Amino acid sequence: MTLTPERIVRLEDDAVVVLDQRRLPDEEVELRCRTSAEMAEAIRTLAVRGAPAIGIAAAYALALAARNGEDLDAAYATLLSSRPTAVNLRWALDGIRGDPSPERARRIHDTEVDRCRRMAALAADLIDPGSRVLTHCNAGGLATGGYGTAVGAIRAAWEKGLVEHVWVDETRPLLQGARLTAWELEQLGIPYAVIADAAAASLMARGEVDCVVVGADRIACNGDTANKIGTYALAVLARHHGVPLYVVAPTSTLDPATATGAQIPIEERDGTEVTTRFAALNPAFDVTPASLIAAIVTEAGVHRPPYEESLPR
Amino acid sequence: MTLTPERIVRLEDDAVVVLDQRRLPDEEVELRCRTSAEMAEAIRTLAVRGAPAIGIAAAYALALAARNGEDLDAAYATLLSSRPTAVNLRWALDGIRGDPSPERARRIHDTEVDRCRRMAALAADLIDPGSRVLTHCNAGGLATGGYGTAVGAIRAAWEKGLVEHVWVDETRPLLQGARLTAWELEQLGIPYAVIADAAAASLMARGEVDCVVVGADRIACNGDTANKIGTYALAVLARHHGVPLYVVAPTSTLDPATATGAQIPIEERDGTEVTTRFAALNPAFDVTPASLIAAIVTEAGVHRPPYEESLPR
Repeated sequence: MTLTPERIVRLEDDAVVVLDQRRLPDEEVELRCRTSAEMAEAIRTLAVRGAPAIGIAAAYALALAARNGEDLDAAYATLLSSRPTAVNLRWALDGIRGDPSPERARRIHDTEVDRCRRMAALAADLIDPGSRVLTHCNAGGLATGGYGTAVGAIRAAWEKGLVEHVWVDETRPLLQGARLTAWELEQLGIPYAVIADAAAASLMARGEVDCVVVGADRIACNGDTANKIGTYALAVLARHHGVPLYVVAPTSTLDPATATGAQIPIEERDGTEVTTRFAALNPAFDVTPASLIAAIVTEAGVHRPPYEESLPR
Repeated sequence: MTLTPERIVRLEDDAVVVLDQRRLPDEEVELRCRTSAEMAEAIRTLAVRGAPAIGIAAAYALALAARNGEDLDAAYATLLSSRPTAVNLRWALDGIRGDPSPERARRIHDTEVDRCRRMAALAADLIDPGSRVLTHCNAGGLATGGYGTAVGAIRAAWEKGLVEHVWVDETRPLLQGARLTAWELEQLGIPYAVIADAAAASLMARGEVDCVVVGADRIACNGDTANKIGTYALAVLARHHGVPLYVVAPTSTLDPATATGAQIPIEERDGTEVTTRFAALNPAFDVTPASLIAAIVTEAGVHRPPYEESLPR
């Protein structure tokens, strides 16, 4: 299967069709969302996930809701509340609200994929020849509607002959790294190994990690970055070992309304995702302070500290 | 079920009987090991695991081998080679080799459990009232033949009213925290929550972890400590957040023949433990440098840096 943007999410006559990411890599099954409520449920249950991808899917769903005569204010609110942390959802919904047409939704999708390619080229320049790159969760084509942010950077660097190997954090509890990133890298022919999240520090201590590249769900004005739980741990560990950590994300992930990471809402998901048998706590994201981030790469450029000045307004 | 020392491992007429830790907590099944080879296999496949517990089980197995007229040098070698990292295996086997009797094996078992109780009392004094304690893997009764080292410390501190809550790292890939430590804490009535390993840093950043308490598989002369993969990450993260990390282990875990962590062999287990579908790397242990350890508690006392001086020879 080629992972085209249309395969990840597209609008058909009566439904927004998404590749069901809950069932990958075991099954390649499509899910048809016929209403804004069905799309909100698909986003909530992670059938479609990844900050840019849920924005794109929500935009298509609002265009479909308009075509079907749904109450657009209610549809907007339903979609917006489906997940709290990623700001791309608001960005995409606000972008389409004034013109909820299929063409506008498709333009948002194209824009996001195009941004991925541009930031990937920028980020590839940060990667030294022969690099062993570690990534967390899935910031690939699946997460972004095509091409990918962090995985896009790895892909662009690989095509330039710069990447020797990729370490893929399995990313508990839902294993987006082991299930989705490994599956994408496998298709791209890029050498990788999945590791338990807790093994990353050990690899760094052994000098086997040259850089860490991750995506983002929301970036505050000061550069504090919310991303999949475990990213913050990687950032502390990377700093301790002198390994640079790069955040690769579209400008749609920047939130001008959020001053620092302390204001980013962290989704608390059901403990049963960690274990069905025991008491569990399951924060789905964490915030990495800007001080631990070597550079934030968007399609607009490579931003260095201080991020208050370098991030585009 | 009460988790008595005899329930974890005991010698019967024709077998060493262990509670099969691979099947906990779903099933409480006993496994009968009738030869040294069967016990080596039980240790290798983690039916019995935890540095002190595998030493005890191996001692019983050598006593049984002597009773059955096995070649004792071969039995010793088979048992010793079953797992490479924990030094307790050698300690226990050397302790019983000259007198491979059931009584001697039982004495080794009793000694280890008694040491646990003593070090737990010492470690409890390091825990402040109202502490939220984080632990990794299982260093409980199951791992030690009774009572536990790190979990023993938590238990002793809980009985003194000092522990508010326990965070249990699920401990991928084999989930010893989620399966075994949670099961033990549940039985002891100590409040806990299982977390994804990657969530520990976030809890520290939120000020919800007061100390980290872990066991050990081998402690070098300088205090460098091998323990379950992920312990080193916790140590770096704890230091970054000003949270003390304590290692609680019997003196049988100290290895006078190993100068520093660099000489500790790290077991590389099969990648399929991480994922059956994708390429994977699966180091089972890591080494935490002595510089990141606030104190090492043995039954002989609380040892502070510099460990070359404070650890008993």
